[in-house]
Amino acid sequence: MPLTLPPLVDHHCHGVLRHDVDADGFASYLTESNAPAAPGTTFFDTQLGFAVLRWCPPLLGLDAHCPAERYLERRGELGAEESTRLLLRASGTGTYLVDTGLPGDLTGPGELAGLGGGEAGVIVRLESLAERTADAGQDAASFLEVFDHAVTAAARTAAGFKSIAAYRHGLGLDPDPPGAAEVHAAAARWLTDRPPGGRITDPVLLRHLLWSAVRTGLPLQLHTGFGDPDLRLDHCDPLLLTDFIRAVAPHGCPLVLLHGYPYHRHAAYLANVFTHVYADVGLALSHTGARAAAVLAEALELTPFGKLLYSSDAYALPELYVVGARVFEDALTRLTDSWTSSGAWSEPDAARVARMVSAENAARLYSLVPAGP
Amino acid sequence: MPLTLPPLVDHHCHGVLRHDVDADGFASYLTESNAPAAPGTTFFDTQLGFAVLRWCPPLLGLDAHCPAERYLERRGELGAEESTRLLLRASGTGTYLVDTGLPGDLTGPGELAGLGGGEAGVIVRLESLAERTADAGQDAASFLEVFDHAVTAAARTAAGFKSIAAYRHGLGLDPDPPGAAEVHAAAARWLTDRPPGGRITDPVLLRHLLWSAVRTGLPLQLHTGFGDPDLRLDHCDPLLLTDFIRAVAPHGCPLVLLHGYPYHRHAAYLANVFTHVYADVGLALSHTGARAAAVLAEALELTPFGKLLYSSDAYALPELYVVGARVFEDALTRLTDSWTSSGAWSEPDAARVARMVSAENAARLYSLVPAGP
Amino acid sequence: MPLTLPPLVDHHCHGVLRHDVDADGFASYLTESNAPAAPGTTFFDTQLGFAVLRWCPPLLGLDAHCPAERYLERRGELGAEESTRLLLRASGTGTYLVDTGLPGDLTGPGELAGLGGGEAGVIVRLESLAERTADAGQDAASFLEVFDHAVTAAARTAAGFKSIAAYRHGLGLDPDPPGAAEVHAAAARWLTDRPPGGRITDPVLLRHLLWSAVRTGLPLQLHTGFGDPDLRLDHCDPLLLTDFIRAVAPHGCPLVLLHGYPYHRHAAYLANVFTHVYADVGLALSHTGARAAAVLAEALELTPFGKLLYSSDAYALPELYVVGARVFEDALTRLTDSWTSSGAWSEPDAARVARMVSAENAARLYSLVPAGP
Repeated sequence: MPLTLPPLVDHHCHGVLRHDVDADGFASYLTESNAPAAPGTTFFDTQLGFAVLRWCPPLLGLDAHCPAERYLERRGELGAEESTRLLLRASGTGTYLVDTGLPGDLTGPGELAGLGGGEAGVIVRLESLAERTADAGQDAASFLEVFDHAVTAAARTAAGFKSIAAYRHGLGLDPDPPGAAEVHAAAARWLTDRPPGGRITDPVLLRHLLWSAVRTGLPLQLHTGFGDPDLRLDHCDPLLLTDFIRAVAPHGCPLVLLHGYPYHRHAAYLANVFTHVYADVGLALSHTGARAAAVLAEALELTPFGKLLYSSDAYALPELYVVGARVFEDALTRLTDSWTSSGAWSEPDAARVARMVSAENAARLYSLVPAGP
Repeated sequence: MPLTLPPLVDHHCHGVLRHDVDADGFASYLTESNAPAAPGTTFFDTQLGFAVLRWCPPLLGLDAHCPAERYLERRGELGAEESTRLLLRASGTGTYLVDTGLPGDLTGPGELAGLGGGEAGVIVRLESLAERTADAGQDAASFLEVFDHAVTAAARTAAGFKSIAAYRHGLGLDPDPPGAAEVHAAAARWLTDRPPGGRITDPVLLRHLLWSAVRTGLPLQLHTGFGDPDLRLDHCDPLLLTDFIRAVAPHGCPLVLLHGYPYHRHAAYLANVFTHVYADVGLALSHTGARAAAVLAEALELTPFGKLLYSSDAYALPELYVVGARVFEDALTRLTDSWTSSGAWSEPDAARVARMVSAENAARLYSLVPAGP
Repeated sequence: MPLTLPPLVDHHCHGVLRHDVDADGFASYLTESNAPAAPGTTFFDTQLGFAVLRWCPPLLGLDAHCPAERYLERRGELGAEESTRLLLRASGTGTYLVDTGLPGDLTGPGELAGLGGGEAGVIVRLESLAERTADAGQDAASFLEVFDHAVTAAARTAAGFKSIAAYRHGLGLDPDPPGAAEVHAAAARWLTDRPPGGRITDPVLLRHLLWSAVRTGLPLQLHTGFGDPDLRLDHCDPLLLTDFIRAVAPHGCPLVLLHGYPYHRHAAYLANVFTHVYADVGLALSHTGARAAAVLAEALELTPFGKLLYSSDAYALPELYVVGARVFEDALTRLTDSWTSSGAWSEPDAARVARMVSAENAARLYSLVPAGP
């Protein structure tokens, strides 16, 4: 039975490119790799590549599974803006919570939501905020003060914060907030040694960022699991956050574990046993395409149904909004169909859980007014 | 084709509450968490919650998937004892091997089996035995001597021992038996520092407990994987036991890896390559409910069919006996149906393996006389 | 829809026994264990055992799922050579890339391919090559020189190299090539201390072997994941190779991650994000039998379709060639059927990916001319 879903709340996504891309550029966004495909292979020959060519061509007037060249040709004829509009509007997304911390000629939250016909919110990436603050070239005391004000200011309007400590150091961080002197010394060292545009990787500073966000009480998103090869996947197991999660518990700050794959069962466990932990499988559903139902099913083993969120983690290509939404809905439909037809779940429960995961959980967590009907 | 199963041997379970519970109390047993549900959520909205409301209401004269309130109301009308009797007897359990180490107003093994109409055996929890011994307030030498006698005495009547070293320290223990002087010093330290009722967490003492059980030759159950947030899940990967397993091999003591989830494939590997290792997926089937067949299937990839055991790990709620048994049987039926209909397994093999896993393996391992039909 | 596959390229396999085996000998090859089955159990009661008795008896004129005794009796009547011929020829294997590093009375590559009616290539096992070199009893300088020449000579004719560093030390090796002085000292130490036939386990020497192979530019196969109990499974997670993979990247040497189970999703991730990394699930499909489709599906989540390879990892029993091939084809057929019938994949794509994974990827990687139809 097809589920009737509300407009999706995509609680973790990014801007899309303002300009057209060629075939190689397009393919480079179908992988988390930052290197070329191996000789004789193409990134279109992946579950994500197949999913793009399944779902997107019909939205631009072509047959599903048409050749990639044909699709890109059609996309070029329409232009980046019109393609983006058609694709976003077909995705069924009602609310976009946009991580604005990625570089590049990308649409901002309002622009994205305008093209897609939805509402926008902002997720502030802590590391980008700190690096932009450092770019102003101050000393450690000023840097820390300005960053502190920036976090406080951001908390007044943002839906939440996000950390990519997973990329910058791995999740095996000391769980407790660092002391002021320690933070000052680390900041001084970093500001002195930092090349222009240099990334923040010092574990003391990364912990300071995390705790600065925790103190605001807004939801804090944490990258865990699968991502580009900047990270070491085994250092991104969400279980490495266990002691941090325990340390945060008394502070009342919800922690949202993003992606998690292939450790999504670990994230689900944490969401099960810790009151303030939530989970999504964002990126993992798009990248596993035809296998998304299997991955979502694993996340739904232990994650309480009130704590699983939808996200596309779409970035650069509006196609990734379509794929994120379609594979999620398709996966959710298959699973609930299978569980209701076996009698394991009732149909009303299935419909209720589908609404929760698609939009209601995120609306409650981020204090949103869900987009209309 | 429905499998015809013998009465189940539940080789790892616990007593149930002697008294009625209210809705919050009931819900608190539907999770391994020891904290409240997140705002706007309930532990009934989990795979385990849905499984309870699928299987149990019909046994008390209600429709499956009725509202939780209606179910609890009916349960209250019947009272704890009558509900327990109805639920246990419907579970199809013939033998209960009860870990008696949990606190609370719980039924003992004989009482439980009496209510359920089956046979009872005892699994002695090593840490509880040591803590009860320490409660008597002796010095280290006496403590060790009394504990040693208690293990020897228990071995005469118990079906096996159980360790929760996973909770108390994690499984990354030194694999070898500690020396006598080392044990004495650790015991002296613990008995001196111990607050009333204090838990045993010293790794030397935990190893002493394990090796005390190994020397009896009775099956030794080890908690691995998923459990309450007292443990760190990544410290409970059964592979951390590899060197302990090797050290135990010459002693002829069977080791039984409980639960394992989400590391149940790791436990299955160990059962495959080490003669004296057995596995179950106890707790994991109940908690994953509609997904139990997928989890059981993963355990059945490498576990030799003569070495997988059934358990409910039920605790406090008789409902958990029903859920444990029904999801196990349902999962086993689905898997064997699928494998026989594809031709991968023959029907006689499927029926034989189902009997082995349900009862015969446990009967052989624990030297039981299986309960009659 | 049945897939039409080309003759398989089995890029990682071993010789088969030249002589007959009795029932216990046969059963000992159905497990990675090197110890007897537990009391009351048999290795025939495993997914691999069931798969052997599903696929092989019909090839020798018996019914599928006949008793093991009947199968072994028939096999004995035919004799080892004739059974091997019948089984290999029925496996559909066109090319055998044989790891020649295992001891025992096994068929060589040419002999194996002759019996099976296919082409042969050689995979040189680095550790065996080093140990054979050391058997000649030279000093460190000569040993290193002779080994170096042996690698260079092997590279002229071999299809690739293989390392079992996973067994000898685990994969947590320092990623960089060791310095010449360090290697010399380690070699001197090893040659002095080595008992006759002693294995190479020194991590400096294991790294020297790996880098000697990397410098040839031929594909380097690395054992990862599931294997016999000589290894510690948690030390064989392919993610432990991440820094080695990064260090190898500039050298243009393809790395092939074998087996991987239960970490095959980790291997798939590495193949996704690193240009020069390939993966197979060899051993894992045979050993999981009725579950092979589920395991293959997990590998196909992130592995780019141009980078997944087929292998049987068959060893000693020709039955393992049959099982490897049949469970692979059956799994691939089920998955592609399911994905095309849901519309996730197109039928031409499914057929194309099936050819790639069965033969074309390996032919490209190892510069083979695929065997004719």
